Amino acid sequence: MTTEGYALNVLVLAGGSGTRFWPASRHDRPKQFLRLAGQSSLLHQTVDRVLPLCGVVGVWICTTGDLSAEIERVVPDVPRDQILREPRGRNTAPAIAWALSRMPDEARRGIVVVLPSDHLVRDETEFRDALHRAAEIASTSNTVVTLGVVPDHAETGYGYLELAEEPAADTGARRIIRFTEKPELEKAENFVKSGRYLWNAGIFVFRGTVMLDHLRRLQPGIMDALAAIEREPDRLAEHYAEMPKVSIDYGVMEALDDLVTLPLDCGWTDLGSWDALAGVLPRDQHGITALGDVVSLDCDDSIVYAEDGTVALLGVSNLIVVRSGDAVLVVPKGRSQEVRRLVAKLGEEGREDLL
Amino acid sequence: MTTEGYALNVLVLAGGSGTRFWPASRHDRPKQFLRLAGQSSLLHQTVDRVLPLCGVVGVWICTTGDLSAEIERVVPDVPRDQILREPRGRNTAPAIAWALSRMPDEARRGIVVVLPSDHLVRDETEFRDALHRAAEIASTSNTVVTLGVVPDHAETGYGYLELAEEPAADTGARRIIRFTEKPELEKAENFVKSGRYLWNAGIFVFRGTVMLDHLRRLQPGIMDALAAIEREPDRLAEHYAEMPKVSIDYGVMEALDDLVTLPLDCGWTDLGSWDALAGVLPRDQHGITALGDVVSLDCDDSIVYAEDGTVALLGVSNLIVVRSGDAVLVVPKGRSQEVRRLVAKLGEEGREDLL
Repeated sequence: MTTEGYALNVLVLAGGSGTRFWPASRHDRPKQFLRLAGQSSLLHQTVDRVLPLCGVVGVWICTTGDLSAEIERVVPDVPRDQILREPRGRNTAPAIAWALSRMPDEARRGIVVVLPSDHLVRDETEFRDALHRAAEIASTSNTVVTLGVVPDHAETGYGYLELAEEPAADTGARRIIRFTEKPELEKAENFVKSGRYLWNAGIFVFRGTVMLDHLRRLQPGIMDALAAIEREPDRLAEHYAEMPKVSIDYGVMEALDDLVTLPLDCGWTDLGSWDALAGVLPRDQHGITALGDVVSLDCDDSIVYAEDGTVALLGVSNLIVVRSGDAVLVVPKGRSQEVRRLVAKLGEEGREDLL
Repeated sequence: MTTEGYALNVLVLAGGSGTRFWPASRHDRPKQFLRLAGQSSLLHQTVDRVLPLCGVVGVWICTTGDLSAEIERVVPDVPRDQILREPRGRNTAPAIAWALSRMPDEARRGIVVVLPSDHLVRDETEFRDALHRAAEIASTSNTVVTLGVVPDHAETGYGYLELAEEPAADTGARRIIRFTEKPELEKAENFVKSGRYLWNAGIFVFRGTVMLDHLRRLQPGIMDALAAIEREPDRLAEHYAEMPKVSIDYGVMEALDDLVTLPLDCGWTDLGSWDALAGVLPRDQHGITALGDVVSLDCDDSIVYAEDGTVALLGVSNLIVVRSGDAVLVVPKGRSQEVRRLVAKLGEEGREDLL
C-alpha cells in the first residue's frame, strides 16, 4: 500500500518455535498459533492489527516451510505468495534479509515494518499511530527506527534500549546508545527508575533498501548466501544453511550509529510464559484466571488454560494448570519459565510424541 | 457349586455409584469399573478372587439395570442369567433380598457369601480361606457370619464391629456386641488399641434361607414387596420402589443376637478416595504414586492417575492430579474426600455432562 509517497509493507516474523507454552505449543504449533488471549491466534491478531495501516496486500509473513500450511489456515486472507517460506529458521537477520529479497522492488524501496508474530497489544490505535510516525521518520531520514516499549515494571526477561538524554529530533524519537540484554533485577529496577530505558519489542521500521545496505556491510555472509540463491535457486536449502544464525538486534541494530526509537505506550506484552496470562486475562474474585471450561471450589490465585475438556480444581492455590490435546501440565505460579526444562527432559527421554 | 455338603454361591453387590473417584468414576461408570490398581477393574478382580471357591457358576452379581451392560462387558464369563438387575438401587437389604429371591432353590438353601464389588485384597489365599471358614460356621450353626478386618490404623472412615471378650466357639469366630459407625479419631484410636474392634468390610456369609427368615421378621416391607413382585412380575419397578431404602447392616445385622465375625487379615482396603491409592500402588523415590503416562520434574509426594494422555508435573508437592476422559481434577493430597463436594457443585450447576 502506498501512503504519503512511500509504500508501506509489514513483515511479520512467524518462524519461531518456543517451548515455554508447552503443552499448548508444540513443534508444529508454536506460540503464534495459540489463542492465548481473545478469540483468535496471536498471529491472526498481529495481522488484523496492521490491516488499517497497509491492507492485506501489504502483509508479508516469513516462516519456515513446515509451519506454512498452518499459517495459510490461520490467516487465509493473506495472499499465498506473500507467505515467504524459509527452508529452515536461521534467526531474524537471515529471515529479514531473505524476505526483503523476495519482496517486489517497490515494496523494498518503500518502508518495511518488522513485527514479531506472537505479542499482545492492548491499545491498537496507539500502536498503529506509533508505527505510522516511525514510518514517517524512516522515510524522511533513512534511519532505522525501533519501537521501544515504555516499561511499567522492572522486567528481567526483556532486553532494554538505553536512550540518549536528548531527543533525536522534534519527532519524539530518541537516539539509542546501547542495547542491554536481560538484566538482573536490581539493574532492571534502576533502568525503569531512570526513565531512560525502553523495552526492546523487536519492532523495527526502515526503508527496505537501507536495511539491505546495512546487511551488506554488517552481515556479508547472509548477503553472499542470498546472492548464491539468486544464481542457483534449486540449491536454496543448501545456500540457506550457509547463512550465519544471527539475530537482527545483534547482527545489525547494535552496530548502527544512527538508530532511533519511538516510545510505545500501548499495553504491550510478549506473553513470555504461562505466568504472563494472569496479566492479560480477567481474574475472578478468587484470583483465578481461567480460559476454557474451568470449575473451581475453594481455590485462589491460579491460572487455568483448558483448551479442550474441563479442568476442575479443588482447594488449590498458586497453581498453573494447562490442558491441551493429549497432555496436562501442572506447575506452581511463578515457575512457568521452567517449563523449558521440562520440555528438555521430554526431549532427552525421546518423547517426541509430546513435543 | 456344592462343597462338603452345601452349595456355595457368591453374591457380588455391584449397584453402587459413588462420587469420590470423580472424574474417573461417573454415573455410568462407578468405582467398581475402574482399574484403580492392577490391570483389571475392581469388579473383575472381585470375581476372579472367588472363582477358586465357587467357580463361575456360583457367582451372582446384583446391579441396577443401567449398569448391567457394562458389567456384561467387564466380566463376560459370568453367565448372563446370574447378573441380577434391580430396576433401581434401594440400598443393600433390598438388593440381597431380591437376589436371594431370584436364585434357584438349591443355592438359596446353601451358603451365600455377600461381597462388595469395589474393594482390594492383597492376600487372596487368606481371603478365600477366611470365607471358607465362615461358610463352614454358617452351614453348621445357621448364624450369620461377617468377616471383620483386623485394623492396622485408626481409620475414621470405616464402621467398626465391637467384639465380645470370649470367642464364640472353637472356630475362631467372635460374637459381635455392637456396630459402631465412623467414629471420631480419638475413639478410633481407642478401638484399635483395645484389640476388640474390627472394621466392617460389608462381607457377610449365611445360609440363604436363614437370611430370608431374618428379613421376613425384621424387614417385612421388603419381603412384602418381593411377594407382590412374585404375584405381578409386570409391575416389578413399581413394587420395587415400595421397598424401604435400608442397608443390610442397619436393617438386619445390627438387630441380630447371634451374629459372629471371623477376623480377616488379608491386606484389605475399600479404596475410599484418591488418597487411598498411595497406600496400594508403588511410589517412586520422590514419593510419586503414578498410574498411566506421568512425567515429573522436581516433584514429590503426589498421586497421579492418567487414564489417558500424559500428565506432566513440574515443581509441585502434595497434589493429586487425575486425568480421565474429558476432565482433569487437581486437589491437594489429604483432601480427596472433598471431591464429593465438587461433584455436588457440578450437579448444582447442571453439569450433567461431567457426572
